[in-house]
Amino acid sequence: MSVDRLDAQMAFLMEADKLKAITRATRNHDGRFENSAEHSWHLALFATVLAEHAPEPVNVGRVVKMLLIHDIVEIDAGDAPIFGEVDHSAVDASERAAADRLFGLLPQDQATEFLELWHEFEDNETPDARFAKSLDRFQPPNLNLAIGGGSWTDYNVSLETFEGKLAPKIQRGAPALWNWLHPRVKAFFRTA
Amino acid sequence: MSVDRLDAQMAFLMEADKLKAITRATRNHDGRFENSAEHSWHLALFATVLAEHAPEPVNVGRVVKMLLIHDIVEIDAGDAPIFGEVDHSAVDASERAAADRLFGLLPQDQATEFLELWHEFEDNETPDARFAKSLDRFQPPNLNLAIGGGSWTDYNVSLETFEGKLAPKIQRGAPALWNWLHPRVKAFFRTA
Ligand SMILES: [Ca+2]
Repeated sequence: MSVDRLDAQMAFLMEADKLKAITRATRNHDGRFENSAEHSWHLALFATVLAEHAPEPVNVGRVVKMLLIHDIVEIDAGDAPIFGEVDHSAVDASERAAADRLFGLLPQDQATEFLELWHEFEDNETPDARFAKSLDRFQPPNLNLAIGGGSWTDYNVSLETFEGKLAPKIQRGAPALWNWLHPRVKAFFRTA
Repeated sequence: MSVDRLDAQMAFLMEADKLKAITRATRNHDGRFENSAEHSWHLALFATVLAEHAPEPVNVGRVVKMLLIHDIVEIDAGDAPIFGEVDHSAVDASERAAADRLFGLLPQDQATEFLELWHEFEDNETPDARFAKSLDRFQPPNLNLAIGGGSWTDYNVSLETFEGKLAPKIQRGAPALWNWLHPRVKAFFRTA
């Protein structure tokens, strides 16, 4: 281990601190907008607790690692709210540049590893990525249910919009979680 | 898998959301006091990136899991600042009760596993726990350095107090990280 190597690792870790200042559209139980760092923690905990509900075998350690780093690109690219109007190809380009810069702060071997893991998450093709991505879609509706609307109210989202945008993504990587969530969301919109 | 099991897991995960509202004595790069959820994310990332600097072999996945749950007791017990005046036996008792209640929300097998993992972290005897605990002590001084004082200024901490409280804990579980940090902290206090 060289000191240069640790210098590079610390430069990355201290730059990552900025993720705590990236605000999301979802609100926590106390009404404060969630930031992407605490969101990443929450998702890593979801993966740890809910791994048995993955529809095919996953490597929980890899899923957790993916979730710990999945939003770091937002330090440069910002958060694109799922119910907002966004230019997807512009967001993609800006997130790819962010991934190159941010993971590029690490020593070469780790930069490559983290970059590949982030692309695997984004591509959403492997069992680990599909489960991780589903958790990223599954957590926010649960926060919305807990707070009585949250981003559904803020973005004037209907049950149909919710089902159209979220059902395929959650169902693909975590059907058991979708089956648990769906009746709860329907009940919420029935009485909202 | 029974639905009751998933109900219990979700009750725990949504109760864990409250960790995002527990404020620590350390401040992030933007001056806002860090909360224990984003702190836990940051530490899990430290473990992922810095595992090679552990002085003996560790299971990184277990270290990450330990760090993801290590502060959850603060939902009931609050955070006890390291430079503050605290009644350690009262804090211990209240954290133990918190661990029983919070991890007890999970299905029995997971409740036992998480409780044991939390006690292992607290006892600080195994290689995994020693490395995890060292990271918990190593991250805050780095935030303080980044912000030019932070909790050292707020609590009127001297270099000697810092060395007395932190050196043994960081050195034991991560000597390479202490050797990297120590000259930086000395340089800070020389010019502060
Ligand atoms: Ca703590």
